[in-house]
Amino acid sequence: MSDRLFSQSTGMFIAETHTDAVTWLFSVDKFLVEGRTKYQQYQIVEMPTFGKTLFLDYKIQSSLLDEYVYHESMVQPAMVTHPNPRRVLVCGGGEGATLWQALRHGTVQEAHMVDLDEELIQMVKVHMKEWHHDCFDDPRATLVHQDARKWVEDAAPGTYDVVLSDLPGPIEGGPALYLYTKEYFEHVGRCLSDDGVFVLQAGACNETYPYCFACIHKTLDTLRETFPVVRGYYGLVTTFQMPWGFILASKGPDPLSLDPQEIASRLTARGLENRYCTPRFMPSMFTLPEYMLREIEKGRVLTDEEPFLWTA
Amino acid sequence: MSDRLFSQSTGMFIAETHTDAVTWLFSVDKFLVEGRTKYQQYQIVEMPTFGKTLFLDYKIQSSLLDEYVYHESMVQPAMVTHPNPRRVLVCGGGEGATLWQALRHGTVQEAHMVDLDEELIQMVKVHMKEWHHDCFDDPRATLVHQDARKWVEDAAPGTYDVVLSDLPGPIEGGPALYLYTKEYFEHVGRCLSDDGVFVLQAGACNETYPYCFACIHKTLDTLRETFPVVRGYYGLVTTFQMPWGFILASKGPDPLSLDPQEIASRLTARGLENRYCTPRFMPSMFTLPEYMLREIEKGRVLTDEEPFLWTA
Amino acid sequence: MSDRLFSQSTGMFIAETHTDAVTWLFSVDKFLVEGRTKYQQYQIVEMPTFGKTLFLDYKIQSSLLDEYVYHESMVQPAMVTHPNPRRVLVCGGGEGATLWQALRHGTVQEAHMVDLDEELIQMVKVHMKEWHHDCFDDPRATLVHQDARKWVEDAAPGTYDVVLSDLPGPIEGGPALYLYTKEYFEHVGRCLSDDGVFVLQAGACNETYPYCFACIHKTLDTLRETFPVVRGYYGLVTTFQMPWGFILASKGPDPLSLDPQEIASRLTARGLENRYCTPRFMPSMFTLPEYMLREIEKGRVLTDEEPFLWTA
Amino acid sequence: MSDRLFSQSTGMFIAETHTDAVTWLFSVDKFLVEGRTKYQQYQIVEMPTFGKTLFLDYKIQSSLLDEYVYHESMVQPAMVTHPNPRRVLVCGGGEGATLWQALRHGTVQEAHMVDLDEELIQMVKVHMKEWHHDCFDDPRATLVHQDARKWVEDAAPGTYDVVLSDLPGPIEGGPALYLYTKEYFEHVGRCLSDDGVFVLQAGACNETYPYCFACIHKTLDTLRETFPVVRGYYGLVTTFQMPWGFILASKGPDPLSLDPQEIASRLTARGLENRYCTPRFMPSMFTLPEYMLREIEKGRVLTDEEPFLWTA
Repeated sequence: MSDRLFSQSTGMFIAETHTDAVTWLFSVDKFLVEGRTKYQQYQIVEMPTFGKTLFLDYKIQSSLLDEYVYHESMVQPAMVTHPNPRRVLVCGGGEGATLWQALRHGTVQEAHMVDLDEELIQMVKVHMKEWHHDCFDDPRATLVHQDARKWVEDAAPGTYDVVLSDLPGPIEGGPALYLYTKEYFEHVGRCLSDDGVFVLQAGACNETYPYCFACIHKTLDTLRETFPVVRGYYGLVTTFQMPWGFILASKGPDPLSLDPQEIASRLTARGLENRYCTPRFMPSMFTLPEYMLREIEKGRVLTDEEPFLWTA
Repeated sequence: MSDRLFSQSTGMFIAETHTDAVTWLFSVDKFLVEGRTKYQQYQIVEMPTFGKTLFLDYKIQSSLLDEYVYHESMVQPAMVTHPNPRRVLVCGGGEGATLWQALRHGTVQEAHMVDLDEELIQMVKVHMKEWHHDCFDDPRATLVHQDARKWVEDAAPGTYDVVLSDLPGPIEGGPALYLYTKEYFEHVGRCLSDDGVFVLQAGACNETYPYCFACIHKTLDTLRETFPVVRGYYGLVTTFQMPWGFILASKGPDPLSLDPQEIASRLTARGLENRYCTPRFMPSMFTLPEYMLREIEKGRVLTDEEPFLWTA
Repeated sequence: MSDRLFSQSTGMFIAETHTDAVTWLFSVDKFLVEGRTKYQQYQIVEMPTFGKTLFLDYKIQSSLLDEYVYHESMVQPAMVTHPNPRRVLVCGGGEGATLWQALRHGTVQEAHMVDLDEELIQMVKVHMKEWHHDCFDDPRATLVHQDARKWVEDAAPGTYDVVLSDLPGPIEGGPALYLYTKEYFEHVGRCLSDDGVFVLQAGACNETYPYCFACIHKTLDTLRETFPVVRGYYGLVTTFQMPWGFILASKGPDPLSLDPQEIASRLTARGLENRYCTPRFMPSMFTLPEYMLREIEKGRVLTDEEPFLWTA
Repeated sequence: MSDRLFSQSTGMFIAETHTDAVTWLFSVDKFLVEGRTKYQQYQIVEMPTFGKTLFLDYKIQSSLLDEYVYHESMVQPAMVTHPNPRRVLVCGGGEGATLWQALRHGTVQEAHMVDLDEELIQMVKVHMKEWHHDCFDDPRATLVHQDARKWVEDAAPGTYDVVLSDLPGPIEGGPALYLYTKEYFEHVGRCLSDDGVFVLQAGACNETYPYCFACIHKTLDTLRETFPVVRGYYGLVTTFQMPWGFILASKGPDPLSLDPQEIASRLTARGLENRYCTPRFMPSMFTLPEYMLREIEKGRVLTDEEPFLWTA
């Protein structure tokens, strides 16, 4: 045992490279849980400022500092937009917070969560209660470990009022590549009820990597017969170091038709209050910056034959 | 000369630590200009994705990728809110882009820019034309190298229609600590015309460091006799890895009273079009997220006796 | 759960800054054990190339790749130099490998290890068997948790044949600052037998930070009455990214008087073979490079009144 | 211009990854010269502690802190070993310091330096005088920009007394892959005089990457008819974060036959003094650690058909 000099700038880090422009070194105070499932590596760490934080394959996923920003943005606009969401499908959503945000709405009678990675969710159940609040035990909830696309294809028409897609991005070779295509979105439309609402996390909403969001938006734009209403929006996710994009596609209800009073009255009637998607704030989320509109125009329609590729 | 192995992950970087949670390693393709003035070190570098980028004291300031987002956010809301801005003061604003954004308004007859760091601006004039578009040569522009607080204190009452404060943050020992206090803001109020508008860059608008913005907002909130209208807002500055906050304080005109039509008609009349602060988008910038409202409530009034301290 | 882009260069790291010139980012495959004792933080991690590795206060200590280089260098020259080492004192040496290296010599009848940090050694006993080979259970070994200086001061004169000092460096405010002073070295001399040999790890033996080694050497050079033989040497510790220095101070036996045949015959007689300090190689370790000789000349004598300071 | 927070740990860096275990972040105070030749990128930077430092393709090459360690190790053992070196060939050696070290020997009548990268050497001439001391202007020196292998193949038999190979490592696709093969070494033997001495830089001499050195040594070991004497040795290059290996292959003279007195008398007779390879120290450099001997045994003979591959 010998001492080494000059301790400043030392410590533990997880590094994540975002585009070729920047690498984030996230400071870690403590590694709490680590492991590897059939599909991915995970770490739960204690970070300064961010608190407890989940990394998957060394990419930051969610921290206690503002997981509510991501998960309310993921769930609340769609749930509020639907006038009476009773049956909900969550695709992915491993931390359980997406399911929990949906179940907060008193209207919900049944919620199915379909996530491929059973081992991860077993870990999440034990170590991430601040995210899921034990909602897996809610009698209204059913958890299924299966490919979400297959589940959606097999679902009876009109089964769900709301479909919440909280999946990994469409990475080549990744498990979700074909959950961001025109064909898949048509299957989603089929399994939604007549006034059903679909929402998906759609990637970065900033100037360094708008391409994924843009292509998904463009793809949904071509399905106006199924989804006459398509609304992109974003949440200010500090943990992600950037605004994060979501796209809501609806068979009827339009979030832009709801004023703060209506949003407030729906939330009150269903027994919840939001911290980020408040009645005052939620409408402002739907105004995309021009740079995203410019990219959507240039976007490409994603199909099973030509799905998304990260190269822009 | 000998070869060293394993070249992956190599390259040049500028590292910037933000809070104790994260360090950003910015990739540098080329160092274009480097130097040190009496007040600060500077680097102009070529970055992947970001393009030409300015660092001051190893902190990222502005890149060609989205300097327009920062500088339009800095300038356009205040300029548009004032019905007829003729005389404008820019405090700081070393890149010259703040001055340029103001001069784009055809109403402007005179613009004073007061920036302490003459050496930096000499460098900027040569190397950052994409930012300032040679606007220092505009016959309406006057450049003064002096302390901005002294300039404001010495200005005749009612001199300016718009004051744009694009200064470094209130760092202890830094040159701008006393340009974020109640007493200084009162001086600004005095040198503004009766319907004058003041705006300042006010720091991070995210959950890791909302304290600076919150205290400045709180301070302006106590000056309702001078500034009956105080409006915080934010711009999505990708280069900064976070939304960035600004606060507009007005003796009369209120940005919230302008609808997109009115904004558009003012811009057209004055001969400019914006890329970020478009008529459609600008109103959405003024809806602060709840987490900022919560922090403003907890904020402290900044005075010459007790100015801002970075410790939260 | 959402996917983040661009996974290259990602992963877990421990960063250690060495002088102001370089920071080492050590790649971590897995954090095996973490904790904090009353005195220090520790991590045992699995690293690529290095294998299992111990960090204390985020400074790399020892890896399975070459802990034998450090620990043989620490122990073997002194043990071999003494013609018949029966009683041995280990000061510090938390991993247990220093004790183990001493006990390998069949001549040893009694070995005392004095290390302040009981919690660390409890952890080491469970998790670092590859280092200590359960030698704490050797009937010849006694483990004491106490300040080593007090132990040495209290020891009866002539108690030990060999004293092995494997302590943290003389950091200001650290627990070992006064275990690198003239007064302490005189106490060591007193507790050694007439032909006793003392050795200590003495810090970096490279051009970026030779100052610690130089001052310790200079201090021992002034004690020629106690230690007529003072021999600096170094080991090539890959894990430390530099050669590491040791100083042997002897009341009589001189390592330079041993040729490879004599070293080999002593090792054989005592029942051990070395991997690094082989009979062929050991003599070459004692030729210090000129840059160290130049620094020793400039070194300062360390005393209880003026102990070492990191600033050169 | 806005201020960003929390300046600790900021600054400029060049990152170099060495094996998969460690990345070195080298602190840069100033980028002095940057550019790209037909063959490589270069930076000359000012570093704390290291001083002026050359990087090629973001790999550290040489710093003023200890370039003398590398270049004396590269040149002096071979020059001293030859009893009367008059004609010298330097292969590579872009910084000019290898040539300079050779020309310091008063016996030298003619020195040829063959380096492919003319643009680099033009830059070196202007910006690295501390390395080459303007020795390119020495009337005994001739600089040729050509492939070194072709030069050696074309050279008349017995042309040179000493050949100094200071080339990049045998990287696949790199310019020097076929300058580390049995066939090439035979050509070198042919162009050497009857008592000629060849030396080459041979890569890392540590436990993380001994493979390159080991294979080159093994290859020379098979050429005992040409080179009856093969001696591996190493220099303690602080800038490289590790000991660095060299191999001397001689048609007759043996460095191990020289004692310090003989080395001293040769150096004096030729009019030079060394800082690292002193008469006292030089002999100790030839004792390789056991871990290198073990690897040499496992090494593979490199041929034009099967040259070196970095994968171990």
